[in-house]
Amino acid sequence: LSQTAMRQARERQAQLTKPAGALGALEEVSIQLAGISGSCPPPAPERPAVAVFAGDHGVLVQGVSPWPQEVTVGMVENFRAGGAAVNVLARACGAVVRVIDVGVASEVAGDDVVLVRNVRRGTADLSQGPAMSRAEAERALAAGISVANELADAGHDVLLTGDMGIGNTTPSACLLAALTGTPAEVVTGRGVGIDDDTLALKTRIVADAVARLAPDAEPIDVLSEVGGLEHAGLAGFILGAAARRLPVILDGVIAGSAALVAQALSPEAIHYCMAGHRSVEPGHRTALERLGLRPLVDLDLRLGEGSGAALAFPLVRSAALILDEMATFDSAGVANKDD
Amino acid sequence: LSQTAMRQARERQAQLTKPAGALGALEEVSIQLAGISGSCPPPAPERPAVAVFAGDHGVLVQGVSPWPQEVTVGMVENFRAGGAAVNVLARACGAVVRVIDVGVASEVAGDDVVLVRNVRRGTADLSQGPAMSRAEAERALAAGISVANELADAGHDVLLTGDMGIGNTTPSACLLAALTGTPAEVVTGRGVGIDDDTLALKTRIVADAVARLAPDAEPIDVLSEVGGLEHAGLAGFILGAAARRLPVILDGVIAGSAALVAQALSPEAIHYCMAGHRSVEPGHRTALERLGLRPLVDLDLRLGEGSGAALAFPLVRSAALILDEMATFDSAGVANKDD
Repeated sequence: LSQTAMRQARERQAQLTKPAGALGALEEVSIQLAGISGSCPPPAPERPAVAVFAGDHGVLVQGVSPWPQEVTVGMVENFRAGGAAVNVLARACGAVVRVIDVGVASEVAGDDVVLVRNVRRGTADLSQGPAMSRAEAERALAAGISVANELADAGHDVLLTGDMGIGNTTPSACLLAALTGTPAEVVTGRGVGIDDDTLALKTRIVADAVARLAPDAEPIDVLSEVGGLEHAGLAGFILGAAARRLPVILDGVIAGSAALVAQALSPEAIHYCMAGHRSVEPGHRTALERLGLRPLVDLDLRLGEGSGAALAFPLVRSAALILDEMATFDSAGVANKDD
Repeated sequence: LSQTAMRQARERQAQLTKPAGALGALEEVSIQLAGISGSCPPPAPERPAVAVFAGDHGVLVQGVSPWPQEVTVGMVENFRAGGAAVNVLARACGAVVRVIDVGVASEVAGDDVVLVRNVRRGTADLSQGPAMSRAEAERALAAGISVANELADAGHDVLLTGDMGIGNTTPSACLLAALTGTPAEVVTGRGVGIDDDTLALKTRIVADAVARLAPDAEPIDVLSEVGGLEHAGLAGFILGAAARRLPVILDGVIAGSAALVAQALSPEAIHYCMAGHRSVEPGHRTALERLGLRPLVDLDLRLGEGSGAALAFPLVRSAALILDEMATFDSAGVANKDD
């Protein structure tokens, strides 16, 4: 990030007609946006795109979710038709939605909304062995990087993460446990809603899968052994956005665990990320602490899809507009407290 | 509120293509909006107006704030010119800003933006006696009701509270302490930034002023004895909005303390209110608990002006759109978890 632009943004925040620091976390976002763009004031992001990475999970056969696998492809069609929560929230904030089939179990038709970059038709059951090969993880990462580049080329100036995949909080918990060294009991949650017995089963699966990893496993090995294809796609998407110097608004725990993969591969990439929200999924707190990100929205969401990122976008845009449009004490002729 | 519309909204939330409850607090907002409008789905609010009630405070001579009184009128001119934070944040979400001089100490010119409804040129010093007469408090309340009616007549479908008044966290703390029975030390804060000595002075002033009140003081007597003119205006504004069945998005601690006055006068009025945000000012937590409101934004803001309410508006609008625009499991042909 540009240290010069960030210093200018900090100085400008102190000159605007408000007590210093009175806009709280919004001021930090504005400074980060200045650092990302290399200019002060930073341009306000006006063309958001939500990239919803979709995949299926072999571990679902173990009974970690009450939802059937077909819901993943059903929701892909719902995204295409514009009827899902993320479609509504994206329209509300002026964002486009793109869905990337990076690992859906059944065939998906491609069009302008749904991009078919399928690496394999769902992961293998991570409780029995590697979820995917290293080569597959790399292809899914590359797909995510490509999508970021395509959206940047199309003029989008802020990229939001989304995800869809029945069962995907299980690989998320595995990645969180493996990459932060946190016990499975702490990072494994109820996803969209499971009972105590299922939670105990899910936690045991997470603990056992993570225990298989070599202590010195590389990030890409962790990803392929216990991750998901949408996690790999999202990690690449974050790396690709950072390489294009675009801000990224992360959604919930799936994005958080994918961001940990991106962080392990390239720590600087996280400087381009903002946490759109904090999910009720317990591992998300662990992820945000490790990433050093403060959530902008904290409303007990646990939906995924990019819903929390879309809700946060207006806050991010407002933060940039504050730096650009507010009067200074000098320009407004208002007495400052030290005058 | 319409219990029928709220029940319909609850049922509809359970049919939308997402796990039940997955949109957290946003679902509660949508149900409240249904109750307010009496219809499900409720119309999404599209014409927000922020009403910034401005007043001065005689207690400022005691040294409770480092800012000079002239800043109030200076900021009124800044609002008129469009250069303050609330102007930027209102433009960002499509809201208009109206400023109401209900008690500014110096003369203010009226126009389309600034409405002159001055009741008196600043309150008297509440540390020495009543801040205003009961008749003045009633006139300021009436002014607030009028403004709500005028904005409703102009077609605004959601009203946001704003405030400006150097020193106004002192009467806010008095109202909070008096109306909730909370000790002055708990509800008195640093406002936009004061040192330990000033905080001790401010707390003592609050405690002493509240101690003067009769145990059975009526809400209007509490307001006139230790309140502010913008607090009275805001309380009336909330009552007026509720009477017109319009949703109200409250800003920070000034609005919270004014809402306690409105609650004391008419408890049902609070059913029309949403808490836009939670301020860092400690008394705001006390206010929100007593009002039974959950803040939508929680980003360490401590600016006032309506800034937190404006930031929350897109969340409120999105909550309504979810009920209106999302597909149901049936309409989308997606399997529900019980299928």
